[in-house]
Amino acid sequence: MNDERRERAEPVPDESEVIARVALAAAAEPGDAKVAELVARHGPAGAVRRFGRLGRTRVPDLAAAEAEVERVRALGVRLVPPATPGWPTQLDQLEVPPLLLWVRGVTSLREHVVRSVAVVGARAATAYGRRVAEGLGADLAARGYCIVSGGAYGIDAAAHRGALAVGGFTVAVLACGVDVAYPHGNEALFEQVLHNGALVSEVPLGAEPRRGRFLVRNRVIAALTIGTVVVEAARRSGALNTAAEANTLNRPVLGVPGPVDSHTSAGVHRLLRQYAVVVTDADDVETELGGFDDVAADGAPGLLRPRDRLSELARILLEEFPAHTALSASELAGLAGVASASVPPVLAELAAAGMIRNEDDCWRLTAKARA
Amino acid sequence: MNDERRERAEPVPDESEVIARVALAAAAEPGDAKVAELVARHGPAGAVRRFGRLGRTRVPDLAAAEAEVERVRALGVRLVPPATPGWPTQLDQLEVPPLLLWVRGVTSLREHVVRSVAVVGARAATAYGRRVAEGLGADLAARGYCIVSGGAYGIDAAAHRGALAVGGFTVAVLACGVDVAYPHGNEALFEQVLHNGALVSEVPLGAEPRRGRFLVRNRVIAALTIGTVVVEAARRSGALNTAAEANTLNRPVLGVPGPVDSHTSAGVHRLLRQYAVVVTDADDVETELGGFDDVAADGAPGLLRPRDRLSELARILLEEFPAHTALSASELAGLAGVASASVPPVLAELAAAGMIRNEDDCWRLTAKARA
Repeated sequence: MNDERRERAEPVPDESEVIARVALAAAAEPGDAKVAELVARHGPAGAVRRFGRLGRTRVPDLAAAEAEVERVRALGVRLVPPATPGWPTQLDQLEVPPLLLWVRGVTSLREHVVRSVAVVGARAATAYGRRVAEGLGADLAARGYCIVSGGAYGIDAAAHRGALAVGGFTVAVLACGVDVAYPHGNEALFEQVLHNGALVSEVPLGAEPRRGRFLVRNRVIAALTIGTVVVEAARRSGALNTAAEANTLNRPVLGVPGPVDSHTSAGVHRLLRQYAVVVTDADDVETELGGFDDVAADGAPGLLRPRDRLSELARILLEEFPAHTALSASELAGLAGVASASVPPVLAELAAAGMIRNEDDCWRLTAKARA
Repeated sequence: MNDERRERAEPVPDESEVIARVALAAAAEPGDAKVAELVARHGPAGAVRRFGRLGRTRVPDLAAAEAEVERVRALGVRLVPPATPGWPTQLDQLEVPPLLLWVRGVTSLREHVVRSVAVVGARAATAYGRRVAEGLGADLAARGYCIVSGGAYGIDAAAHRGALAVGGFTVAVLACGVDVAYPHGNEALFEQVLHNGALVSEVPLGAEPRRGRFLVRNRVIAALTIGTVVVEAARRSGALNTAAEANTLNRPVLGVPGPVDSHTSAGVHRLLRQYAVVVTDADDVETELGGFDDVAADGAPGLLRPRDRLSELARILLEEFPAHTALSASELAGLAGVASASVPPVLAELAAAGMIRNEDDCWRLTAKARA
């Protein structure tokens, strides 16, 4: 009965739908909002039929896509379209979700990324940055976080390596096909990632990395993970783009500071002066992401927030809580428009859930509650 | 007429009052709340008469104090009691203000510290920390800030040196008498500070530095200045105490990050995870302290906040603004209980004053407004 229900809610994808999505992905650049809109409105097959309207240079080729699907599967690469059991539903929060994912590696990408953190940063990282990224990758992986990054030189590679060093899971989201080892110097690393995680991409096999593809790829890293840690980033680093995407998605953005006279930390420091939170080690990261720790890994309809488990009055109070100001119980009662007497037990509930903390007889939201 | 009024408001101190304060300072440790309470209630002379009640081991000796006042003045050291023209009125915001200040150096301490910033940190600073502190001291002094610090080795000395290097003003607030060169290695530095600023203390000439005196001294550094910058501090550094005092006084606390694997930055990073704001250079510091820039230097009754110049409606709106949340004009109208139509011109006024900034059609307090 239960299995039947699950099947109805998450049907095995219609093969023609997969073929249509592959055809669309071959014809359009990833992150194309117009294509996503067509798919949302008319379904993948309908989008293929209406693709001509968009006036793109290429057109979807269903016959070629059918052959490609066969070839891809023969290579052991999985095709994961939205609304199927392997699809990480948190990607649905993107304005332009991937048409589908090409996945090489572990069988359940979705389960692994339920408790995941992005560790990203500069390609031209310093020894300091690489050391910190590798340490964070290892310490967070040891705590059960899957380390998601972009497979680039520098911080990305160090974060993947850290996770691998402790036998943890790590996922590299690539801007090229999952069969294209880019950058080449990380080929051996990708081989290890395959056996302890996955290579993931929204572009077809053989697709080369391009500038625009790195940027749209970053939104996938941000959307897959509970939060994003930026380790080193110069003022124009692509990692800042990942951070901005995470912020847009209301995921915590954490930054590892460095020397103020290091150009490679200047971008992180700017983030920290904007919306990011300082973290210095895995303890700090876990404190900031703690609210998402016990998300159900199996069949979760998305990231379940701890606040979804609160009483109604607690949720109302939480809604009214200012993000960074400490208020007294009576001020909160006034804000929420509820009787003062009803507030203390609710404050106790929120404190027990780690959503607020006491400070000089006032209450303040924790990072967990703001997450 | 005007001069007469000023004289009435800020009378030349009664000589007996100065003597009584010197006698009290000799008999009690600085920061003694009970003594401060006696003085607030009964005046200095009354406090001397009632001092016995406190059961302290020493008693005030008016005859000795009278001789001491003469000796101090003969040495060219000024005695500055509260409510006199040289008194920095921002010290009145302290719960336990100094009984009086001993000042060696420039004639107008009060004017110099109107636009001042504390730059404090670890004695056991790294080369990185000293370099940053000296740079900040120089750059902030060049912008007209008086650099206030504690005259200690490490960050303090580097900050004083930076200010001196650009011919700026700098004030060392000591935990010992202003004639006691402690630490001895900074004797030459103190000599320079005398000619480009002042040595200040609330303990009598000849008083040795003691552990407790460093802590109470820190509140004077915090209270004298617009904000406190912590450059390097281990987890138990006294500089964190200065930061806490500044925070208690609602003065901005700014922190210079460093490598996360440097113990000497661990205390700063903890502050940054609590209430401090990341700053990387003098530009950042000026942005954070900007609201206090044009405080009248002459005869100001204290630190005049920019919000004191706003229209009444703007002040009401500012009161209601959440510290860190962006709100729309209509949400603000609701919060402040004013008509929606009246809000836009007020928002324009606040934006022009640098108190709020626009963000996706919403408005957010700037650091200046929170200061």
